[in-house]
Amino acid sequence: MTDPFREAQPEKPAPKAVISRVSLYLRQLENLQRFGHKTISSSQLGSLLGINDAQVRKDLAHFGPFGHPGIGYQIEELIPILRGILGIDRVWKTALIGLGNLGRALLRYRGFRGRGFQVIALFDTDPKKIGQTHAGLTVHSLQELPTVAAELGIQLAILTVPAEVAQAVADLAITSGIQGILNFAPAPLNLPETTALVSVDLSTQLEQLAYKVLTAHAGQIPPHE
Amino acid sequence: MTDPFREAQPEKPAPKAVISRVSLYLRQLENLQRFGHKTISSSQLGSLLGINDAQVRKDLAHFGPFGHPGIGYQIEELIPILRGILGIDRVWKTALIGLGNLGRALLRYRGFRGRGFQVIALFDTDPKKIGQTHAGLTVHSLQELPTVAAELGIQLAILTVPAEVAQAVADLAITSGIQGILNFAPAPLNLPETTALVSVDLSTQLEQLAYKVLTAHAGQIPPHE
Repeated sequence: MTDPFREAQPEKPAPKAVISRVSLYLRQLENLQRFGHKTISSSQLGSLLGINDAQVRKDLAHFGPFGHPGIGYQIEELIPILRGILGIDRVWKTALIGLGNLGRALLRYRGFRGRGFQVIALFDTDPKKIGQTHAGLTVHSLQELPTVAAELGIQLAILTVPAEVAQAVADLAITSGIQGILNFAPAPLNLPETTALVSVDLSTQLEQLAYKVLTAHAGQIPPHE
Repeated sequence: MTDPFREAQPEKPAPKAVISRVSLYLRQLENLQRFGHKTISSSQLGSLLGINDAQVRKDLAHFGPFGHPGIGYQIEELIPILRGILGIDRVWKTALIGLGNLGRALLRYRGFRGRGFQVIALFDTDPKKIGQTHAGLTVHSLQELPTVAAELGIQLAILTVPAEVAQAVADLAITSGIQGILNFAPAPLNLPETTALVSVDLSTQLEQLAYKVLTAHAGQIPPHE
């Protein structure tokens, strides 16, 4: 018996652009499944994203032979494979650092849980916030990060701290054994190569919107997301 | 005398994937400028993003001949051109709808102003929130959106409302003359083609992080953002 997830593991990491497109494919497939679709061809999937069919086939072929000649991709089969490739088929023990406005908002964001990101500890440096309870969790002092992270086996950290302290907080997270950081602070972070970093870039999203309005304005209407 | 921004205007909208990469190019160029770089070749710019040099040249050639043979791109020259292409070289009058946790957090987000998104009006349906002041602006009742939008010439709306009301609020924004929506509600929106829509997809960002940690774990370390 073959395990499709194991088969799907690439020999070496796929290029970043491929992984970004895998996320887009997954999102489209989840939408299609919601609307009751069972199969999709590479050209249909590509056309939903403005990508040509050869690119779709090439991207997915990085991970294994998933297409069925004459049928296309089986949506129900492909979704768990892509979730496995991306690593969102498991639970990631996550700390949220910085209980400001954005941190508290993200605690309520439903998408984290759906992607396996389970926030199990909160940290702040503000004496007024330490000891408070949010979403059933008590806010620890940031100084306790190394001991709490070791005790609970925390793997990831969401950083919602001011830009000026982001680097120092990230450094502490790394020495506490945290393997990946989702950075919402509007500051570039300089991290060792062994730490995964994703910075949430609201600027890019704003640029996409400005461009769309601009072109719609000129009577040139780009397609929706 | 030629106006490089006018020259840079494409005949028809570039494909969405190109525009996404223009954002990425701009971010890299801004970083390079911060570190004092003056020029960059297409292969250097591509390598920062895991894209090949031919793709970089092809993408930018959509908008005009910006490269200098033997030198590459002049960073100082290219940044304002790309900002012009994306439409972030001007002020966009923006309403923020939904003063919950996420809405209030975004009001403080510095990136909006840097991209020309000026929030000039706030709206909510909660009687307790209407009349409150945040960031120097008074919260209006959502019912006032059509009149306030017309009066102030509001062009864009940031939607930070619960998923279940997102479609109705978006519909009201459109009948109020709003041309573009930045949707943070975890709900797909069905909008007329004349309205620009960008949905901020935290899920994709989470997937990228999970993938990076997963591959770093296997001794396979993908490059940073």
